[in-house]
Amino acid sequence: MDYRNKRVLVTGGLGFIGSNLAIRLVELGANVTVIDSSRPGCGANPHNLEPVADRVRLLPLDVGEAQQYADVLRECQVVFNLAGEVSHIHSMMAPERDLEINAAAQLRFLEVLRRERPGVRVVYAGTRQVYGVPQYLPVDEQHPVEPVDYNGVHKFAASQYHLMLSRLGALDAVVLRLTNVYGPRMALSVPCQGVLSTFLRRALLGQELEVYEDGELIRDPVYVDDVVEAFLLAGAAASLRRRTYNIGGPEAMPLRQIAQVVAQLAGVRVVTKPFPPERKSIDIGSYRADSSRFQHHFGWRARVSFQDGIRRSLAWYREHWDRYLDTRRPTFCGMPEHQGRKRRLALVPAS
Amino acid sequence: MDYRNKRVLVTGGLGFIGSNLAIRLVELGANVTVIDSSRPGCGANPHNLEPVADRVRLLPLDVGEAQQYADVLRECQVVFNLAGEVSHIHSMMAPERDLEINAAAQLRFLEVLRRERPGVRVVYAGTRQVYGVPQYLPVDEQHPVEPVDYNGVHKFAASQYHLMLSRLGALDAVVLRLTNVYGPRMALSVPCQGVLSTFLRRALLGQELEVYEDGELIRDPVYVDDVVEAFLLAGAAASLRRRTYNIGGPEAMPLRQIAQVVAQLAGVRVVTKPFPPERKSIDIGSYRADSSRFQHHFGWRARVSFQDGIRRSLAWYREHWDRYLDTRRPTFCGMPEHQGRKRRLALVPAS
Repeated sequence: MDYRNKRVLVTGGLGFIGSNLAIRLVELGANVTVIDSSRPGCGANPHNLEPVADRVRLLPLDVGEAQQYADVLRECQVVFNLAGEVSHIHSMMAPERDLEINAAAQLRFLEVLRRERPGVRVVYAGTRQVYGVPQYLPVDEQHPVEPVDYNGVHKFAASQYHLMLSRLGALDAVVLRLTNVYGPRMALSVPCQGVLSTFLRRALLGQELEVYEDGELIRDPVYVDDVVEAFLLAGAAASLRRRTYNIGGPEAMPLRQIAQVVAQLAGVRVVTKPFPPERKSIDIGSYRADSSRFQHHFGWRARVSFQDGIRRSLAWYREHWDRYLDTRRPTFCGMPEHQGRKRRLALVPAS
Repeated sequence: MDYRNKRVLVTGGLGFIGSNLAIRLVELGANVTVIDSSRPGCGANPHNLEPVADRVRLLPLDVGEAQQYADVLRECQVVFNLAGEVSHIHSMMAPERDLEINAAAQLRFLEVLRRERPGVRVVYAGTRQVYGVPQYLPVDEQHPVEPVDYNGVHKFAASQYHLMLSRLGALDAVVLRLTNVYGPRMALSVPCQGVLSTFLRRALLGQELEVYEDGELIRDPVYVDDVVEAFLLAGAAASLRRRTYNIGGPEAMPLRQIAQVVAQLAGVRVVTKPFPPERKSIDIGSYRADSSRFQHHFGWRARVSFQDGIRRSLAWYREHWDRYLDTRRPTFCGMPEHQGRKRRLALVPAS
């Protein structure tokens, strides 16, 4: 896995996973270019790349404006494609925005990329959300695709762009379908970023953690360093045996237990609440990834226990408090509907 | 199956299947509104609705401009949603156009529909193209989704919009994944509409039929009347047992044999040709639908044999020659690249 002097592109490199990946790539000696539009709501934070600010080329562009940086594409040797909107809630509030960010911009990007750099390796950040409500656990890559929100539909479309163009020989792409990822550089001051972002934020602010109903739903959170390792392996592999891989965490546990671990380490309480109907209708129930395909093909495993990952995360955010926990100004997730008003989702309760 | 006085909407009702369906609905006494943008390349023909011209309300709008006909949506009782672009070739030449027509416009349409008429029955015209290269035959609804072109990706996204919104209780949709459909009112004077359109056009013009390589690839063409019957059944069912159904033809046979049946009935010859690389790269190989789920749940079966369906089609086109076979002007499929120039697809040969 030699990234020394490799010309690497990271789309969405100011975001949570993208920035952790870009920093690691710089440490490994790669020549890193980051594309990021810093679109509100998508998790970009200018502070995320501070440790490598002078060693990364940052292009403040939308990934879909690929004509503007065609020269960068022409020269890149590996593409890590993480640009996107991850919020399921946002996608239901503004479906066309999600289509634009997660599908249309990706289509434009890949059409320029295939022309400028045919056959290039692309590692795409997919999501477990494409599976929808699991029909069985753990969920393997053969599980039916039945997303429960627009985000899942559009992320699947984008993953199919990658795979379809790879079948044509136009790209050499691999899709990593990620479970809940957590760790340093998440967007904590922004709502709608998922349960672990919410838990970490509230724990750091000394607030109690809210678990819906009895917290029985299972998740398998994975620490960001383990995910970064998976991206690095997928980007460097001489050849790919498969093009779709699930990436899950080392342990699966009920959300109640997840909350308890965070609460105990941060010294806050856990309380239970009724499930808000607009969230329940797009909830996927319990999820646990079967990552054995990636483990076998790449010799990877998730190494950081949940307890250890949360301990590291809390320590990191306490050290970088001023850049990640804005307690004074109202938080803004990127949805105009969220600004200064109570959130309303255009959802009908599930029947 | 009582459509008398039912207020029914047919999107894409100037197209091939949509117009046959609209005519049948009028015969059954329904109150039919057709939405059709007549966008070049999508198969609309103003002559398609001639038999019922004075008994159908035609709105010449894009399906995505749903705000403009929100009042129609508010009152409709069943929606047959057939608006779209079917050409795989077009989708590879102009991917963003396909995204706009097959995904973005559908998203806008459904978001207005769910607001104006929550819970309404929608029958969506899906496609076998979402499955990609079959991993087994016959292909059932559990077959993995691995489309080989943008058209398949976007049609799957649109089908997931329908299913996801149905899971939320916002719509009551059913997706029919259609195999090759043929019969009266196909767009014969337009290239890129599929093998049966090409065969019928050439046969009617007295030209020889071209089969690629040895013509071993299997297809299961279905006559349009049988497909119309399936739509009517799905639109009228009191409740749906499943939301995705394959619709295939009564017989599966090699393309060589398909060509021979057409050629024999029309009195032309069949010749073999090498597979054009830009077509081979997005070809799905052999396909044959397993329609048993729809057969069992709806008591449907494809009744018109291929021989009989082709005989009826040839007779119909000979009777309506002037409206469907324009031999003088150059044909135009809707792609500017096709006009007066040799076609070029932005494809890399499959590896």
